[in-house]
Amino acid sequence: MAKYVYYFGKDGAEGKGDMKELLGGKGAGLAEMTNIGLPVPPGFTITTEVCVYYYRNKEYPEGVKEQVGAALQRLENEMGLNFGDRERPLLVSVRSGARTSMPGMMDTILNVGLNDESVNGLSKMTGNERFAWDSYRRLIQMFGDVVLGIEHAKFEEILQSVKEKKGLKYDYELSMDDLKEVVKQYKELVKKETGRDFPQDPREQLWFAIDAVFKSWDNQRAITYRKINNIPDEWGTAANVQAMVFGNMGEDSATGVGFTRNPATGEKKMYGEFLPNAQGEDVVAGIRTPLPISELERTISDAYRQLLNVAETLEKHYRDVQDFEFTIQQGKLYMLQTRTGKRTALAAVKIAVDMVKEGLIREEEAVMRIEPEQVETLLHPMIDPEAEVNEIARGLPASPGAVTGKVIFDPAEAAEIKEKDPEAKMILVRAETSPEDIAGMNACEGILTQHGGMTSHAAVVSRAMGKVCIVGCEAISVAREEFRAKDIVVKKGDVITLDGTTGRVILGDAPKVEASVMGEFAELLSYADKFRRLGVRANADTPEQARVAHNFGAEGVGLCRTEHMFFGEERIKAMREMILSDTEDQRRKALNKLLPMQRSDFIEFFREMAGKPVIIRTIDPPLHEFLPKTEEQIKELAEDMGISEKELKRKAESLHEVNPMLGHRGCRLGITYPEITEMQARAIFEAACQVKREGKEVIAEVMIPVVNDVREFINQKEIVDRVAKEVMQEQETDIRYKVGIMVELPRACVTADKIAKHAEFFSFGTNDLTQTTFGFSRDDVGKFVPEFIKRGILDFDPFQRLDEEGVGELMKMAVTKGKSANAEIELGICGEHGGDPSSIDFCHRAGLDYVSCSAYRVPVARLAAAHAALREKMKVERDK
Amino acid sequence: MAKYVYYFGKDGAEGKGDMKELLGGKGAGLAEMTNIGLPVPPGFTITTEVCVYYYRNKEYPEGVKEQVGAALQRLENEMGLNFGDRERPLLVSVRSGARTSMPGMMDTILNVGLNDESVNGLSKMTGNERFAWDSYRRLIQMFGDVVLGIEHAKFEEILQSVKEKKGLKYDYELSMDDLKEVVKQYKELVKKETGRDFPQDPREQLWFAIDAVFKSWDNQRAITYRKINNIPDEWGTAANVQAMVFGNMGEDSATGVGFTRNPATGEKKMYGEFLPNAQGEDVVAGIRTPLPISELERTISDAYRQLLNVAETLEKHYRDVQDFEFTIQQGKLYMLQTRTGKRTALAAVKIAVDMVKEGLIREEEAVMRIEPEQVETLLHPMIDPEAEVNEIARGLPASPGAVTGKVIFDPAEAAEIKEKDPEAKMILVRAETSPEDIAGMNACEGILTQHGGMTSHAAVVSRAMGKVCIVGCEAISVAREEFRAKDIVVKKGDVITLDGTTGRVILGDAPKVEASVMGEFAELLSYADKFRRLGVRANADTPEQARVAHNFGAEGVGLCRTEHMFFGEERIKAMREMILSDTEDQRRKALNKLLPMQRSDFIEFFREMAGKPVIIRTIDPPLHEFLPKTEEQIKELAEDMGISEKELKRKAESLHEVNPMLGHRGCRLGITYPEITEMQARAIFEAACQVKREGKEVIAEVMIPVVNDVREFINQKEIVDRVAKEVMQEQETDIRYKVGIMVELPRACVTADKIAKHAEFFSFGTNDLTQTTFGFSRDDVGKFVPEFIKRGILDFDPFQRLDEEGVGELMKMAVTKGKSANAEIELGICGEHGGDPSSIDFCHRAGLDYVSCSAYRVPVARLAAAHAALREKMKVERDK
Repeated sequence: MAKYVYYFGKDGAEGKGDMKELLGGKGAGLAEMTNIGLPVPPGFTITTEVCVYYYRNKEYPEGVKEQVGAALQRLENEMGLNFGDRERPLLVSVRSGARTSMPGMMDTILNVGLNDESVNGLSKMTGNERFAWDSYRRLIQMFGDVVLGIEHAKFEEILQSVKEKKGLKYDYELSMDDLKEVVKQYKELVKKETGRDFPQDPREQLWFAIDAVFKSWDNQRAITYRKINNIPDEWGTAANVQAMVFGNMGEDSATGVGFTRNPATGEKKMYGEFLPNAQGEDVVAGIRTPLPISELERTISDAYRQLLNVAETLEKHYRDVQDFEFTIQQGKLYMLQTRTGKRTALAAVKIAVDMVKEGLIREEEAVMRIEPEQVETLLHPMIDPEAEVNEIARGLPASPGAVTGKVIFDPAEAAEIKEKDPEAKMILVRAETSPEDIAGMNACEGILTQHGGMTSHAAVVSRAMGKVCIVGCEAISVAREEFRAKDIVVKKGDVITLDGTTGRVILGDAPKVEASVMGEFAELLSYADKFRRLGVRANADTPEQARVAHNFGAEGVGLCRTEHMFFGEERIKAMREMILSDTEDQRRKALNKLLPMQRSDFIEFFREMAGKPVIIRTIDPPLHEFLPKTEEQIKELAEDMGISEKELKRKAESLHEVNPMLGHRGCRLGITYPEITEMQARAIFEAACQVKREGKEVIAEVMIPVVNDVREFINQKEIVDRVAKEVMQEQETDIRYKVGIMVELPRACVTADKIAKHAEFFSFGTNDLTQTTFGFSRDDVGKFVPEFIKRGILDFDPFQRLDEEGVGELMKMAVTKGKSANAEIELGICGEHGGDPSSIDFCHRAGLDYVSCSAYRVPVARLAAAHAALREKMKVERDK
Repeated sequence: MAKYVYYFGKDGAEGKGDMKELLGGKGAGLAEMTNIGLPVPPGFTITTEVCVYYYRNKEYPEGVKEQVGAALQRLENEMGLNFGDRERPLLVSVRSGARTSMPGMMDTILNVGLNDESVNGLSKMTGNERFAWDSYRRLIQMFGDVVLGIEHAKFEEILQSVKEKKGLKYDYELSMDDLKEVVKQYKELVKKETGRDFPQDPREQLWFAIDAVFKSWDNQRAITYRKINNIPDEWGTAANVQAMVFGNMGEDSATGVGFTRNPATGEKKMYGEFLPNAQGEDVVAGIRTPLPISELERTISDAYRQLLNVAETLEKHYRDVQDFEFTIQQGKLYMLQTRTGKRTALAAVKIAVDMVKEGLIREEEAVMRIEPEQVETLLHPMIDPEAEVNEIARGLPASPGAVTGKVIFDPAEAAEIKEKDPEAKMILVRAETSPEDIAGMNACEGILTQHGGMTSHAAVVSRAMGKVCIVGCEAISVAREEFRAKDIVVKKGDVITLDGTTGRVILGDAPKVEASVMGEFAELLSYADKFRRLGVRANADTPEQARVAHNFGAEGVGLCRTEHMFFGEERIKAMREMILSDTEDQRRKALNKLLPMQRSDFIEFFREMAGKPVIIRTIDPPLHEFLPKTEEQIKELAEDMGISEKELKRKAESLHEVNPMLGHRGCRLGITYPEITEMQARAIFEAACQVKREGKEVIAEVMIPVVNDVREFINQKEIVDRVAKEVMQEQETDIRYKVGIMVELPRACVTADKIAKHAEFFSFGTNDLTQTTFGFSRDDVGKFVPEFIKRGILDFDPFQRLDEEGVGELMKMAVTKGKSANAEIELGICGEHGGDPSSIDFCHRAGLDYVSCSAYRVPVARLAAAHAALREKMKVERDK
């Protein structure tokens, strides 16, 4: 029979830390801590397989009941207690625990095993009758809510009414008799709501609780969380049954959570918070504000020292930052959970680099620990330190970065707005957040909460999402549709800025400055550079972008879209004149105006990227994109050109295309109007010669777009070569240059061998290649692609992540054919996918030489390229 | 040393009939006729290699002079004559002759060998001094014109002045003295124009003449002819030197040309014309009107009977119709040329079938002798080739045939007129057409558009409708109520004629001839059917088209574009209502109106094609194509739907797409609006059940368009299967059906193995596959594709002929992958290429099961499919 239950206790654990798939993260952590001798209350884990079976078959697999019974028996023996005993009762907690942490998404039930008889046993055993009845009250309330589905508020009403009758303010002021009264009323409520008595059989309680934990895998907020975090529905959760320990047995008891290092900054110092004399759910409920963990040193110093040792043991054992939960029962420390600690990108980078220096991990490991996507947040702008800002409050800096947006209070509304307007920038402001707010949090740029600590729901989730977050900002008071900070009222829709790095809340839009790669981040990327094989270039349309990219470590420009230079005031006029010319002569006149402008841009590019390759693409988009749109523009241009508005409109109309994406563009323009390519080639080589004369090395690569056939390329290459020769002779300078193609049409992939005989490089334009391979117009897919993803017809948006199965297959064909014809051919990618880690991994596997992405994604790409290389290395080692 | 000269004479010929590449067509024909014992004046051929060498090296290869000298010596010996002899001079003709006939394009020189002395020899030898001096005059004139480049008119002036002085009208009235005077003045002209005397050395004359023949390969008209007829420049011409025979030696002499059968009708009767007492150039010059060859029976009956025998010998020997040139010198017949006779399509078919019946050729040969493209002309009336017509412009011949009608510009008006007067004959002239013009197009005899290519909307729809159509006629410019061609203004109501076979636009009513489509043509196609492996189906959008296709031998419907059924008056309203619905309920209501209309169409399809497969494609084009365009239509629709015009416009606007070809269309619509697919499936299966109950076999194939991924297909197949099951249960009938995809996107080709696991057939939609593979929008390529073809960047328009290198490669990938996953998968093509012979050949080689084309091309496809199979068979035999 399959083993469904894994015991852990004084004789060690049946499970191990690497059995997360089977035992869930919590179960595996408890087993591992048990095995390395940390103080863990004994118990057992019911595997995720049981949950999966339960969902498939609507019943438990054979043998589970028996195995749970046996484990319970063993637990009773180990503890010297008996379940439901009127003298020495065993109490247990039942907790969920999936493969991956899903904080607060699923259910937990504590104090299982208490009934009208065992409550007396607990009372005798602990000598604390009040505690026993308080525990019983908690069980009925939690059980009623989670298992029986009775509204939480109804229990709160009873509790409140008893307190009011006695004129009490806090729960802990309730006397034993008060608690007995509460229990009595709670039981009546259960009877009334469910038609049944609160179950007195502890084994019935236990199975109810296990059912509830498994069922909570499919509650709405867990589903939403999984969707956002790409966790498969099929994984299921484990259920952990563990002997209760009590943090609520007096001032020498406590419960808390911590991190082995600071999860926000990465500082090497144990970090956390605790509540004295409390049970776990009190922390989560956020009703009492917890104390910083350092306070524990003062109040229960032995346990504090013990905890420091545990933290060190955990880090050494796991070789990573851990977060943990603990309970101190009458001075004795118990560990209830450990797992890899979530951290901000900032902290992740610092911790990884620090651990390399501490000799704890290797550089490779440090690199692999940072998700490429994560580091993009480090490149987010910061608030200009020089700027004067209107700070209205300060809270805890829970997740770093600076964002500005419109204030919104209702998470559901935020989610709605975002769906309609993906460009909407919002800041969610709440008293505190709870798991059902997740969709709304995801829709906002930043989160601000009045209450809660650095490990509150808002803080943990924001860090995981990479959202800017400030918590515990008690200086504000949040109402329905506004919040107050001192005497300032901020209403829905007002603009504020959050500085998640310092905790500042600022009124209005604060000026920001660009981030740069420094300190541990620079160090981490230097590790990455050692491992990656792919080069990383940047797509840059302006010299300014080239500068930014260079600072981020770009090893060249992979794509300069020259036509983007044509949109300046003066330039667009010359451009329009060129487009609307009737004769080659007229066109050349207009092109001559554009030549010096292009040349001066290229000079700056070559200067910035001296010694590095710069790929300049000849004109690409259909000409009518440059045409005047408004009546006013038309009038002005007609006057400038000395023709009638009617004539101008007629010409513009003749350029109209039904499907411009598949129209007269790219090299098709360069072929029908060779003088455009000539002008651009001249601008490139004149610029190159000038920069070379300044003593800088120039490597120019001229890229011909929208090529279908080798003859198109040969046509354009002849022009480029001819002009290059002319300019180099005129200027008596020699320039290293290549001419290649942008591979963005299926036909170019299919005929890549023929093209590669003449082309010196291929750069995959995967945006257009995706459009033509799928027959998807980027501008029009909004009508169905999101729906296709929702329905599972598409796994992802192929414009965001490269479609390996289709587009990738064509790319591989082009690579194979291209190399077969020209072993020296340089291969790269310059579509948006060049900055997407999963796509970069593909490019590595497909044998490209480099990726090119937007400037701000260069560090992401450097890291992703290293990941790809290391993954391959690991695979090779595994396969040995 | 290489052999450059091939002799033919009384001992047979050194060359043979199959040496056309080396000897040219004329040289090979002369050698072959010599070998089979026909009366050919002896001579020799200088090979095409000499010409090629001459062009490459600007000189003759070593040994040519010697070989020519030796051959000349042999000719003198055989004839018993001497070159330049004052007693018995040899005269020769020097004629060009390329591998393929290029009638009249290159030069010929007769009577070479005459000079001031040998003219007397000729006179003595023939006893005809006048003839001798006339021959000398002819030599100087021809030599002066062709070799020395003296304007022909200057010789004519001299001749004219001598005749005028004598008051003569015809050349043959000139006396011997007159001719001597002409010769004298000719020689003076030569001296004056060239500064040299007319060459008296016959060998110098001969080499001048040979030079001139080789040089004429590169004269302007030969170059143009080669370009039009796709003859490579590298082939070169041979030069034939042959003893002169004279058709101008009296009334028992003559010269003429003939065909072994009638080349216009195919009638089995020698056909030709001759000039009595004349030399070859008199026929070509067209100064005298030749007589029908039957007249020869009366005038030189012996020679006529001899010619009849020769013609029979030639046909038996060559097993095909020959055309030939002959000369009769004083009652004796000489053959000067033979080659395969050009013929009309009509004649070609009759001749091929007749020859099978005569036992001259096999059925396979008959089939291979008819070019598939040729037979299409047999299916449409043609403009009388004899008629003089006023051609005002020329466009692309999009749909063949000849029609005459009154010009009309507004399709709605055309439809209206047609309804009132079903006899009205109109030609619709538009800048371009769009789907809402269909009714108007249907009302007209022919369509002429200023823009668009061979696969533009106008072209595709016209071919499907069997309407004559000329597109891309950029020589005209269309305004509201008139169009201009050069300076001619054609107004509404003016009569024009379209020649869709050649692309000619003719002013007024051009006379036409009806072509026969029965008899031998049907027989020939029945031969073809025996050899072909490919099935031939038809693309038919209406039951009427299905009927026409069936009559032409279609073995099923390969593509029924259901949406084309939506353009009728009542239907478009329901369609528009459906598109503009906000809710599924509204949409279903509108779809319920469309259901019975679609069902009744399908019933007719299934009846017509009983026992044969009918592929019905679910809705394909983007919805906005169906929207109202004019203000009036909008107003009417808004009223019908009970919404405001503003609201209607807003909705219509929301359906607008930037690149509709790559937008929300095909199965993307069926997925987002499953109720559309449901309705269509219901209409199909209800129709199928009804026809089955009538006792007819129904084979339904449902085709899902624009599929990218197997999951899209599965989504739609589930709907079709579910509805099929429902309907079959309701109707208690069982229908054979398949569900498959239209392969029209590169991604479908690349992932064909995955799709084939679920799909029962693939039908290649090569129009769209060409668009996406090339990134060419069919509607927009007019701006550059013609120019690309002109520049040699494209070899042909890939929308007319399948691009094997790119699109074909993807198709082959899909075939291989598809078959690997599903050996039973049915493979076809339904793009426009399905009717193009070269593309059909590819489809055969690629292993498709059938092609589908427009009804009028079904016979073309049957023949082309047979050609493909026979070519393959021949290749297999060759490779053995």
